[in-house]
Amino acid sequence: MLSDAFNLSLAKQSVDTIRLLAADAVEKAASGHPGTPMEAAPIAYLLFNRHLRHAPQQPDWPGRDRFILSCGHASALLYSMLHLSGYDLSLDEIKDFRQFGSRTPGHPEFGHTPGVETTTGPLGQGFAVGIGMAMGARFLQDQVAEDLFDYRIYALCSDGDLMEGVASEAASLAGHLRLGNLIYVYLDNHITIEGDTGLAFSEETATRFLAYGWQVLRVEGENLLEIDAAIACAKHDPRPSLIIARTHIGQGAPTKQDSASAHGSPLGAEELRLTKIALGRNPEARFEVPEAVRQHMRGVVERGSEQAALWQQQLEALEKEPRVTAWRKAVAQGLAEGWQQDLPVFDPTEGPMATRQASGKVLNVLASRLPFLLGGSADLAPSNNTALKGEQSFKPGASGRNIHFGVREHAMGAILNGLAHTPGLIPYGGTFLIFSDYMRPPIRLAAMMGLAPIYVFTHDSIGLGEDGPTHQPVEQLAALRAIPNLQVIRPADANETTVAWRIAVETRDQPTALVLSRQKLPILDRPGYGQAQGLARGGYVLAVEEGLLQAVLMASGSEVPLILEAREQLQQRGIGIRVVSLPCWELFERQSQEYRDSVLPPACTARLAVEAASPFGWTRYVGDQGEVLGMEGFGASAPAERLMEHFGFSVSEVESRVLQLLAKKEKPGC
Amino acid sequence: MLSDAFNLSLAKQSVDTIRLLAADAVEKAASGHPGTPMEAAPIAYLLFNRHLRHAPQQPDWPGRDRFILSCGHASALLYSMLHLSGYDLSLDEIKDFRQFGSRTPGHPEFGHTPGVETTTGPLGQGFAVGIGMAMGARFLQDQVAEDLFDYRIYALCSDGDLMEGVASEAASLAGHLRLGNLIYVYLDNHITIEGDTGLAFSEETATRFLAYGWQVLRVEGENLLEIDAAIACAKHDPRPSLIIARTHIGQGAPTKQDSASAHGSPLGAEELRLTKIALGRNPEARFEVPEAVRQHMRGVVERGSEQAALWQQQLEALEKEPRVTAWRKAVAQGLAEGWQQDLPVFDPTEGPMATRQASGKVLNVLASRLPFLLGGSADLAPSNNTALKGEQSFKPGASGRNIHFGVREHAMGAILNGLAHTPGLIPYGGTFLIFSDYMRPPIRLAAMMGLAPIYVFTHDSIGLGEDGPTHQPVEQLAALRAIPNLQVIRPADANETTVAWRIAVETRDQPTALVLSRQKLPILDRPGYGQAQGLARGGYVLAVEEGLLQAVLMASGSEVPLILEAREQLQQRGIGIRVVSLPCWELFERQSQEYRDSVLPPACTARLAVEAASPFGWTRYVGDQGEVLGMEGFGASAPAERLMEHFGFSVSEVESRVLQLLAKKEKPGC
Repeated sequence: MLSDAFNLSLAKQSVDTIRLLAADAVEKAASGHPGTPMEAAPIAYLLFNRHLRHAPQQPDWPGRDRFILSCGHASALLYSMLHLSGYDLSLDEIKDFRQFGSRTPGHPEFGHTPGVETTTGPLGQGFAVGIGMAMGARFLQDQVAEDLFDYRIYALCSDGDLMEGVASEAASLAGHLRLGNLIYVYLDNHITIEGDTGLAFSEETATRFLAYGWQVLRVEGENLLEIDAAIACAKHDPRPSLIIARTHIGQGAPTKQDSASAHGSPLGAEELRLTKIALGRNPEARFEVPEAVRQHMRGVVERGSEQAALWQQQLEALEKEPRVTAWRKAVAQGLAEGWQQDLPVFDPTEGPMATRQASGKVLNVLASRLPFLLGGSADLAPSNNTALKGEQSFKPGASGRNIHFGVREHAMGAILNGLAHTPGLIPYGGTFLIFSDYMRPPIRLAAMMGLAPIYVFTHDSIGLGEDGPTHQPVEQLAALRAIPNLQVIRPADANETTVAWRIAVETRDQPTALVLSRQKLPILDRPGYGQAQGLARGGYVLAVEEGLLQAVLMASGSEVPLILEAREQLQQRGIGIRVVSLPCWELFERQSQEYRDSVLPPACTARLAVEAASPFGWTRYVGDQGEVLGMEGFGASAPAERLMEHFGFSVSEVESRVLQLLAKKEKPGC
Repeated sequence: MLSDAFNLSLAKQSVDTIRLLAADAVEKAASGHPGTPMEAAPIAYLLFNRHLRHAPQQPDWPGRDRFILSCGHASALLYSMLHLSGYDLSLDEIKDFRQFGSRTPGHPEFGHTPGVETTTGPLGQGFAVGIGMAMGARFLQDQVAEDLFDYRIYALCSDGDLMEGVASEAASLAGHLRLGNLIYVYLDNHITIEGDTGLAFSEETATRFLAYGWQVLRVEGENLLEIDAAIACAKHDPRPSLIIARTHIGQGAPTKQDSASAHGSPLGAEELRLTKIALGRNPEARFEVPEAVRQHMRGVVERGSEQAALWQQQLEALEKEPRVTAWRKAVAQGLAEGWQQDLPVFDPTEGPMATRQASGKVLNVLASRLPFLLGGSADLAPSNNTALKGEQSFKPGASGRNIHFGVREHAMGAILNGLAHTPGLIPYGGTFLIFSDYMRPPIRLAAMMGLAPIYVFTHDSIGLGEDGPTHQPVEQLAALRAIPNLQVIRPADANETTVAWRIAVETRDQPTALVLSRQKLPILDRPGYGQAQGLARGGYVLAVEEGLLQAVLMASGSEVPLILEAREQLQQRGIGIRVVSLPCWELFERQSQEYRDSVLPPACTARLAVEAASPFGWTRYVGDQGEVLGMEGFGASAPAERLMEHFGFSVSEVESRVLQLLAKKEKPGC
């Protein structure tokens, strides 16, 4: 790619500088992983210095190649590369490795350090996020402009990455989609934490990846020319490429090389001294960057700026292309103008309607206004109602908006993160709520990174019926609500579903999980009730008490119609009951104390929450005197109505619980 | 294997009977999956009638072959097979498919239906559980008696099973361990819910499994002789075998065969009628079992009983073998005599000591008394302290007690379930607490099945320090506590760790998660405090207030020493503070109201809970007037002490929170 002659001596000097910079950082922190940075330095050098198309001073340039350190524990390598390549990361930051407030945390964190493309550390995640980035690039190529988005995704992976199931799932899909813009390097060092990889990992990795439809190349990890040729070769293959580099953990450390002890602890002062001697360096120097290396490595700054400027010119030249204009607007201003127009308002006479069904309708309207909304399901599109009608599938060689993730929930979660990293895109993915358990690690990372994929989780309770306890979520709602920075919304009817989608699309700095019913639910006759728009505040009064307020009934989703019915019965006995819809705890918690108290009056301690899920967490709303009608154990297999009755989700049970609560009180009213 | 001549006509009649029985069951239930039972009937027939060594009237015979329906949605097939083969499952139960209280739920449930070896439905789980069963068989062969446990594990798998990452992880380990006692049949029907498998799944599955070290065979799904030969061939190969059967979903249904519509809905009355006609059956008959078929299929009852009796004789003949005696005792009486002897009692002068370190010591003592305790880690043994000293590794051809799961947390969880299904075994598995997120589906299944694996989750909070937010659990404790029937224990010091392990080992009907610190913690000087044995009740008073009780401080794990210190400070000001250790909510909830009130006096509303985790769920213990000092967001990368200070886990913060709580009260005392 480059015309400059390859100066092998300078290259080797650079490689050793990277090695020692990382080892010094770990040593000073007295914590971290020196072994992998030392083994991977030659590959990282070639990528950052010769192959990556990147502009260190414009780290957000959309046309750049992406580099992912999937083995995030080798963060000292990435920080060394970013520093040496001229990113805004000073040597002082390297010296402050793993310290409070530094830009060089233990594992790379997106949004925290310029040049870090995604947060990594939990193994396999970076690998799979890269597949999503590659899909995002393909989508922009096909839908906006081919030449502008011909960027590539590079990643460094460890044996742990390749052992994790999420990587297997993603690799299979990448091969299927023929994502030739992926170039992954596997650091085949034969060492894991417990010892030799041969203890647990003896598969033929190359054969496995060939089976997925990847190109596989092999190189020696210290042979710069061989690695360079392999990367060049990978660029020109229509398949994703895996370069298997036989590396040696702790390369250069005289006694610790090729040993598990080089993995997760500092080398130690003496070993580090010996390493420096072995590499012909001053054993007393710390964080040493020879001037020639500094000059050489920084060379990419100018080259990158030129490339970015050229790219910008290309972009401007296309400004009259409607698709380019639409994409630029999407990136600059967020949602397309008028995107909220035509959002469905459901009439009660259209019901009953499952919220998953309403979701499908709303999604399709949104998609007609938002050309960069794309997604699919982990092979449950007909059940999740996630298909965009009239849109093409995302296929090898043609990137439509309907993605078929296959039965791969975990990879879907990570791929959504990769798509969300792609400028302008709004990705969504569906499965049954129960299988959110398969994809918690990427959901957590989305929440941590402030990415905003949308999860469409249907079949949200025992209300799914006959499929039984293996498919009936119980603890999943609580487990999702416990994730910081994740917005979990469980709408009560079709109109709340419209508002839920609107919020999910508007929220561009955190992920949203939509939790939807399989079973049909009445569409509430809103003139008689609080407006569905109240969902935007997380919780709202759906039905005001008539007469003296005696008790508050609260619920989310499919249990809201149930408590409304119970209210009718109780009101007929002259008992004043307020009904509160609480579809989103996160949003409700963000409201003022005043608002929250107006919905749930503190004086009213007779409170019953009803949710066909684990009661875990509800005490915060029902208080010491209140009760929760939830699921105390797993579900069962039977028609939904039978189950609802059996587990106590009936009008009579709600009524009797309220009466018991009231009987405990000394005087009526709140 | 069998000497009887193969009656092809009777076989085909049997196959069609299975097909229609399943289709009739789905039709009557108006819910379920007919397509896979219809396609897999020939294979199921051959397995149950000719190949499985099983005794339908002794479904728990330890020497039996195991059959797993990994594609659990095809449950109607399994129930049909169990009924026809003479298990205690009547035709009426088949007619009651998917109805409340029946033994024929939507997905097969272990412990609910005789002959169901494990609960399946969430794809990939059955596949991976089988690997654990095969490892269990190998372990018993090597450690007890080779000939008694030469049973095999058979499974039927769908494309979904093979797409799930957990299956990839498990398959790689199975190949590595050369588990020749595994014979899996993959139903290669080319159809998924969204349409053709080609939408998302085009890898060369055969090549992938060859790469893992499996034998791969191919058959036509309707060719009985070919399938029979493949199974025979699989039995005599030292590798695990994958038989890829080209099948046709809904085989026999004239218009729905080979279509996604045959997957998850009844065929419909007309299609079912046409199917019966096409198969030469009476179109009006329902649940028809020709007498010849009934006789033929039930033939396995007698044969199985003979085999089981012979096995029992072999077992008796070995009764003087100490290892056989030990195993029989383990199965019959549970834990070995004297297993609690020598459990460590830690002296405060031995401290400070991380609870993960104490755990390693306790585990090793337990292992010396419990020969069937076995386990390992997902490549973190040195960090999890899960290695059994002086014991061999579980390797190809030699089944030691130290298992190297590789970086495969999800498969580890499922394999632990397979080991827990193996009579006599007590399996455990370790990883960092954060990676419990990778293995929630099998944890949930263990809880649902009442299996009792032990999870060793270390590095349990921001107290792990520099690895940063990707590795610091926040919501994991809440998310685990929300799983019904899972015992989550977070001990406060080394001596609580001893008790926690004791409870985990004693508990043989539900899983236990031990949540342990990376960082060192003081060993409490128990004569001055409540006894560690109090952990057995979930929560207990660790330090009684001096003088008038004014506030209760409660915590688990590493925050207990912190609140003890805060108590010292507050008591010095004359404020009476009680300290409660709350290591296990599940156990505490099981105590009488009286006991719970004695620990947390209802009158004392000034309560502060301190836990370096999400506060989610704690309101139940602190009440309306109390507060939780927890983690409201994600952690950060820095040395642990710095983080604890930053996030408010300091004596001064606890003190000031207590003083604020007390300031709100009108009068002192509770």
